Amino acid sequence: MSGILSDLRIVEVSAFIAAPLGGMTLAQLGADVIRIDPIGGNIDAGRWPLAPDGTSLYWASLNKAKRSVCLALNKPEGQEIAQSLIRAPGENAGILLTNLPAGTWMSYDTLRRGRDDLIMLRLIGNSDGSGAIDYTVNCASGFPLATGRGGEPVNHVLPAWDIAAGLYLSTGLLAAERGRRRTGRGQEVVLALSDVMLASVSNLGYVADVQINNTVRPPLGNDLYGAFGRDFGTSDGRRVMLAAISNRQWRAIGKATGLGAQLAMIGPLMQVDIDTEGGRFNARHAIAAVLEAWFAGRTLAEVRAALDGSGVLWGPYQDFGQLVHDDPRCSPANPMFAARMEGCRRRGRHASASTRKPC
Amino acid sequence: MSGILSDLRIVEVSAFIAAPLGGMTLAQLGADVIRIDPIGGNIDAGRWPLAPDGTSLYWASLNKAKRSVCLALNKPEGQEIAQSLIRAPGENAGILLTNLPAGTWMSYDTLRRGRDDLIMLRLIGNSDGSGAIDYTVNCASGFPLATGRGGEPVNHVLPAWDIAAGLYLSTGLLAAERGRRRTGRGQEVVLALSDVMLASVSNLGYVADVQINNTVRPPLGNDLYGAFGRDFGTSDGRRVMLAAISNRQWRAIGKATGLGAQLAMIGPLMQVDIDTEGGRFNARHAIAAVLEAWFAGRTLAEVRAALDGSGVLWGPYQDFGQLVHDDPRCSPANPMFAARMEGCRRRGRHASASTRKPC
Repeated sequence: MSGILSDLRIVEVSAFIAAPLGGMTLAQLGADVIRIDPIGGNIDAGRWPLAPDGTSLYWASLNKAKRSVCLALNKPEGQEIAQSLIRAPGENAGILLTNLPAGTWMSYDTLRRGRDDLIMLRLIGNSDGSGAIDYTVNCASGFPLATGRGGEPVNHVLPAWDIAAGLYLSTGLLAAERGRRRTGRGQEVVLALSDVMLASVSNLGYVADVQINNTVRPPLGNDLYGAFGRDFGTSDGRRVMLAAISNRQWRAIGKATGLGAQLAMIGPLMQVDIDTEGGRFNARHAIAAVLEAWFAGRTLAEVRAALDGSGVLWGPYQDFGQLVHDDPRCSPANPMFAARMEGCRRRGRHASASTRKPC
Repeated sequence: MSGILSDLRIVEVSAFIAAPLGGMTLAQLGADVIRIDPIGGNIDAGRWPLAPDGTSLYWASLNKAKRSVCLALNKPEGQEIAQSLIRAPGENAGILLTNLPAGTWMSYDTLRRGRDDLIMLRLIGNSDGSGAIDYTVNCASGFPLATGRGGEPVNHVLPAWDIAAGLYLSTGLLAAERGRRRTGRGQEVVLALSDVMLASVSNLGYVADVQINNTVRPPLGNDLYGAFGRDFGTSDGRRVMLAAISNRQWRAIGKATGLGAQLAMIGPLMQVDIDTEGGRFNARHAIAAVLEAWFAGRTLAEVRAALDGSGVLWGPYQDFGQLVHDDPRCSPANPMFAARMEGCRRRGRHASASTRKPC
């Protein structure tokens, strides 16, 4: 790690994913992040999955590179210690990151009485103050009803709204700190998890598609929308994803599979311009019919040999075990993991998920 | 918008989602972001969905609040203009954000010859330089095989890896700019999309669960893992999501539905400690059996009347049309949208998806 934020000091009062991820992101860039929990740990201290000794692997994985302190936050003495940590002097301190209800002792108005230029990032559920979490924001987003083959909603398993919120928090925190450096003024930044969802749905064009075209994107299984891409089965029972979002990538598929001449017949066959994303989307079933046999006649290893280095965008589906055991990117051969291990040794902080416990 | 980054100037050479989202996030915080495209637009200029006049709603939605310039990037004159925009003088300029291949004219070594403290954020596919996009990173992540009811992989429709990457870019850009302000040194920051995926899978505990427990999380449909939550049908054909990730939220369900006494019987019935997340996860089918009839006997409106304001975490599933038309959060009643509209008027930049075109 470069430790580029090594002079920055942040106090985090948090639980679960979003604020812990935001804080961890800054900690992994070198910031000194102190997570404060109540005695015995916060409500995420025992979140599954657990190690055999009962340690929460979830908690440990989301709180790497931080310092941790437990205080009696239900007592005035504990609250005072927390407040003095939050208000610590210095132009690089005085920053609080939280996704928990800001009770009296932790309200912005209370805290800034001890440090007028305090920066406080606060994640809430809905902008009206009512509660929301990733699961209840996701169901409203439109995506579960556009996922899979239709007929029933499909929840995502990746907590994507929490992840996005955590990274909006880290971006917002650095923006607010930059602003304070320029103007001397701190601020309370309040972000609603449901607003992260709404902004994202809008940013991807789904809101405009409803407003302007009155189109509600239907579920398409594993097909891409507006271009060619889908999954295929191999002869050894694996599945792979194939996609082309440019003409160059499309031509690479024809060349690598040797099916270029047949794929070129699909334009006149299906009456589309096959050299456009939209044409390939409209002709996707015919394209898939040609490619299906090619994949079904090859093992994953044979597919890999034909497609790797060809400019074709593809990849195998893997479960979490295959990812960890078989994918060389998920190993110390990947510079990211090597750098992280090096950084841990150098800085003397724990990054191994197995050795951290809350409190 | 607060315009807190209003003195910052960023040049973006980008396409599709990740870098455009990272740049837009900073633009919406006030930064002057100039997106450079080749004449006629980049490869995302015509990405679906389109408005009736052919404008890409996708492009327009991902490039709000920026300035846009098209240059002949295939000619020396165009490249020189782009380079001078990128190298523009001033302590708040000299920052390039890109997710496109950095050819000779746009390599860090070339660009820094004109500005030694240049900051360049570059998103690539894999850390070895090979190509990857959200679809081919996602299939490797483990999530599609843990989504839905199993038997086949289910791709997410939200491009979650691109979104996360975009927000890591905005965080990283502000961190690098803060570092330059402190040390005078610029840097090239290279981020791989597949590393964003790998870090996220690890951050959520899935890697540790494999490494330590040899457990590969199976698909659970719409059930939460490690706590109680799932979807239920209402008498008027809607579906809702219900979740409890704390004892307080769990007790709220019993109180609001009037089923507290029956839910309390599940502990001894299923031989679990019902006052723990893990106990409720293990007894989730029995819990659902009790709750199912309650939801099935009520319309969505009746469910809402009973649960809103009760401390229960719940929400209805909505498609994109229902989100836009029926959800008051997706309207100018939400301060986020009101603030954005105000910001647009004040700053004279376009934020309406319907009025932007690439070039």
